[in-house]
Amino acid sequence: MRIVDASNIVVKTAAQAIEQLVMANRIIANEGVVDALGHISLRNPENPNTFFITRGALAPIEVTKDDILEVDLEGKVVTKPAQRTVGEIFIHSEILKTRPEMTAVFHGHQPGIIPFTVADVPMRPLLNTAGFIYQGVPVFDDYTPGSGFLINTKESGERVAKHLGQHRVLLLRSHGCIIAAETMPKVVACAIFLGINATIQWQALLVGKEPNYLSPEEAKTGAEVALLKDGTMSRYWGYWTAKVKYAMPDMK
Amino acid sequence: MRIVDASNIVVKTAAQAIEQLVMANRIIANEGVVDALGHISLRNPENPNTFFITRGALAPIEVTKDDILEVDLEGKVVTKPAQRTVGEIFIHSEILKTRPEMTAVFHGHQPGIIPFTVADVPMRPLLNTAGFIYQGVPVFDDYTPGSGFLINTKESGERVAKHLGQHRVLLLRSHGCIIAAETMPKVVACAIFLGINATIQWQALLVGKEPNYLSPEEAKTGAEVALLKDGTMSRYWGYWTAKVKYAMPDMK
Amino acid sequence: MRIVDASNIVVKTAAQAIEQLVMANRIIANEGVVDALGHISLRNPENPNTFFITRGALAPIEVTKDDILEVDLEGKVVTKPAQRTVGEIFIHSEILKTRPEMTAVFHGHQPGIIPFTVADVPMRPLLNTAGFIYQGVPVFDDYTPGSGFLINTKESGERVAKHLGQHRVLLLRSHGCIIAAETMPKVVACAIFLGINATIQWQALLVGKEPNYLSPEEAKTGAEVALLKDGTMSRYWGYWTAKVKYAMPDMK
Amino acid sequence: MRIVDASNIVVKTAAQAIEQLVMANRIIANEGVVDALGHISLRNPENPNTFFITRGALAPIEVTKDDILEVDLEGKVVTKPAQRTVGEIFIHSEILKTRPEMTAVFHGHQPGIIPFTVADVPMRPLLNTAGFIYQGVPVFDDYTPGSGFLINTKESGERVAKHLGQHRVLLLRSHGCIIAAETMPKVVACAIFLGINATIQWQALLVGKEPNYLSPEEAKTGAEVALLKDGTMSRYWGYWTAKVKYAMPDMK
Repeated sequence: MRIVDASNIVVKTAAQAIEQLVMANRIIANEGVVDALGHISLRNPENPNTFFITRGALAPIEVTKDDILEVDLEGKVVTKPAQRTVGEIFIHSEILKTRPEMTAVFHGHQPGIIPFTVADVPMRPLLNTAGFIYQGVPVFDDYTPGSGFLINTKESGERVAKHLGQHRVLLLRSHGCIIAAETMPKVVACAIFLGINATIQWQALLVGKEPNYLSPEEAKTGAEVALLKDGTMSRYWGYWTAKVKYAMPDMK
Repeated sequence: MRIVDASNIVVKTAAQAIEQLVMANRIIANEGVVDALGHISLRNPENPNTFFITRGALAPIEVTKDDILEVDLEGKVVTKPAQRTVGEIFIHSEILKTRPEMTAVFHGHQPGIIPFTVADVPMRPLLNTAGFIYQGVPVFDDYTPGSGFLINTKESGERVAKHLGQHRVLLLRSHGCIIAAETMPKVVACAIFLGINATIQWQALLVGKEPNYLSPEEAKTGAEVALLKDGTMSRYWGYWTAKVKYAMPDMK
Repeated sequence: MRIVDASNIVVKTAAQAIEQLVMANRIIANEGVVDALGHISLRNPENPNTFFITRGALAPIEVTKDDILEVDLEGKVVTKPAQRTVGEIFIHSEILKTRPEMTAVFHGHQPGIIPFTVADVPMRPLLNTAGFIYQGVPVFDDYTPGSGFLINTKESGERVAKHLGQHRVLLLRSHGCIIAAETMPKVVACAIFLGINATIQWQALLVGKEPNYLSPEEAKTGAEVALLKDGTMSRYWGYWTAKVKYAMPDMK
Repeated sequence: MRIVDASNIVVKTAAQAIEQLVMANRIIANEGVVDALGHISLRNPENPNTFFITRGALAPIEVTKDDILEVDLEGKVVTKPAQRTVGEIFIHSEILKTRPEMTAVFHGHQPGIIPFTVADVPMRPLLNTAGFIYQGVPVFDDYTPGSGFLINTKESGERVAKHLGQHRVLLLRSHGCIIAAETMPKVVACAIFLGINATIQWQALLVGKEPNYLSPEEAKTGAEVALLKDGTMSRYWGYWTAKVKYAMPDMK
């Protein structure tokens, strides 16, 4: 019998982190929460002051082990300094700096969430697995003028980290979202369920009655019990990995 | 000429039931009515007091023959007692106990059905193949506090069985649905058409006029004649299986 | 250079008709206009009083050459009389009888068209390639009581043929549609664009303003010039075939 | 380490242009912005008075190197004059004539954009990557009577070029769109994000409040910084190419 246990989601060494980050890149592409843009990072389990992320100019669907760089909390590439990482690196470095309990940061542009960034409609949970937004979801609109809605300076990185605060999710007006989580599977799960809840909530709003939202308590417990437990995360990681292997023969 | 007849849906031995359950797991994953969570069970044709279901911590897309456990109507694993099955096992054990005419139980979280669990809009049939909801669809909201909307105790399993009553389908607020049927192909068909009818009904409601629902009599006959007959079920099972074989090379 | 010309859509012999019908079955499955049910027929070019269609109990995605039967205009299997064809054979036999200019008949249940069968909203063209509905689209609701919305008797077949009249498309309340066309590529094209136009029209209606429909003259010309010409049909047939070959390795 | 740099988007020779155009045809098919119809052209980098486009009667999904023709700015095939190109060639020839700064022209029929061509709802940007429509999007309805909404004469080609003016995008009533850009990756990106923005905007409109559109300045900068830069275009080209290679084994 094939063994599937929580070991597939635990990373204890830098090598394991790099391997998990490669698969995470393929997963977020395959699940449609990023296209060519969007990126995901994972703190180095051997050094909390650095993290791994891909080099720039590369879509998540193409990432392999050789494309992973180690970056410090000032956004500087440390082990292959001749290489450049993604332009919005400060999203990752600033959040990993200000949220020591988190190890993984996601930034993407799922189309289904964009209406909530441009309409006066707060995102609220309708699904137990989306309960991780129980504190509400702030919308960031404090961009640097002329930045094209990108977070490509240290200062704007600091601002998104501040706006994120103690939340898991920050929406970015006319752009996308940022998510932080304790582990890589958790950040991927939140990216996917944020989009699912967005679709459900928007649809529910169209019949003109207020839907029956989860209370903050229901939502918090819902996310903890129904999604973010180790066993559930391991099961999701196996599911996403199986789909990647079917879709991308080079990952078999 | 390849023979396609009702034999592909009849299970008479435990071995056939296990084989059908493996394919059913792949089908529900491939048809998108479950993701990593969700599960499906089949009564043992050699012993009505036990049923087959996968071990825990495993997504339906990954299930193989070795992952199937035999469980009794108290939710206890019987043949490989060292192994754990799914946390919501009591959904299956309690419904198979209280509904002796049913052999298959499905639990999933199709996104399209969620709005009906959180809005004051009763689900009603608009399609002949969805007529199996002719009695209406109750919405369960009697969760154990702190359970995260999960049905993970014997008591909550008893409650969902009671709320299901003599229906085929029970919606679960902010969570998903439970479906019971006489055979495995029927439970899969109901899972798929529940989602299709949900999408159609929600869409129909948005133009602001009451759509022309099926009467209870039309609906009951519609489901019986257009969907749940052996010949039709055999045809669907062949269709779903063909798609699994194209999508998952290990099932060829 | 690979030659692609109108020869791929012309059928002059029974053997060519059977080959085209097999590919048509795979195409309608792959394009999502049928699931396990739904069927498509093609008049025998060597005998206008018979046509080809699959045997019963088989989904279009599984059809091979050996599954094709020859049926007469009374709905009787002629060359392999021991075999049964689809239960709704009278849709095909009656329409091919009353519409001598047509050679192909499609019956399917595209979800996007169902709202138009249950709401008081007439389907109208918004796209040049959907202009073939320029005469309007009648909705059939004259089912035999207890038939489950199926057309499984000669009498109900006669009724749908009568309701279709000189139209190309007939909607069936809470069930699906029937389409007739001069050639196989045309009937497939109409099945696909009926669904696309349905989605666009429903969406357009939701903003609460009357959209700018095609006039009957614009629509008629639009369909003739932009879709139903031989060159365009050949191009679509090549496109659908290429997609089938990518998706179904046994068709390579 | 595999090298991914801007070299994959630069074409300096006719041979490179032909190779890029073949991949572009596969990409637009794979990304769903064309079906069997729709076409895309690229100016000859060795001769600004000719451009490359496929021969007629061929869907983009099927295009190979041998299917590419060289055409002049009067719409005449120059190097293989015995062959015919697409019927709507004058879209390409007239726009490449009147917009010397552009090298690539796209024409397609993405379903999501059609509502904007038939409803009195101007398309406006809600996403930074769709900011290229910052000048607004005109809707063309000056078709030649009896043309079936096609642009198949030199005169109608001149009219669409005139209506396009200095915009990037022109919508065509009940038909589709035309897009011009400086490079092939840019025109493909605009085709894809036009559809994404259309879906988001339509959805945003349905809650009955005016969404927070990008200002023209925000939109212009958004497109320039977040989408149309060389590095970003290179990343998208790699992404689209990777997906084509997974989906179409003959392109590996």
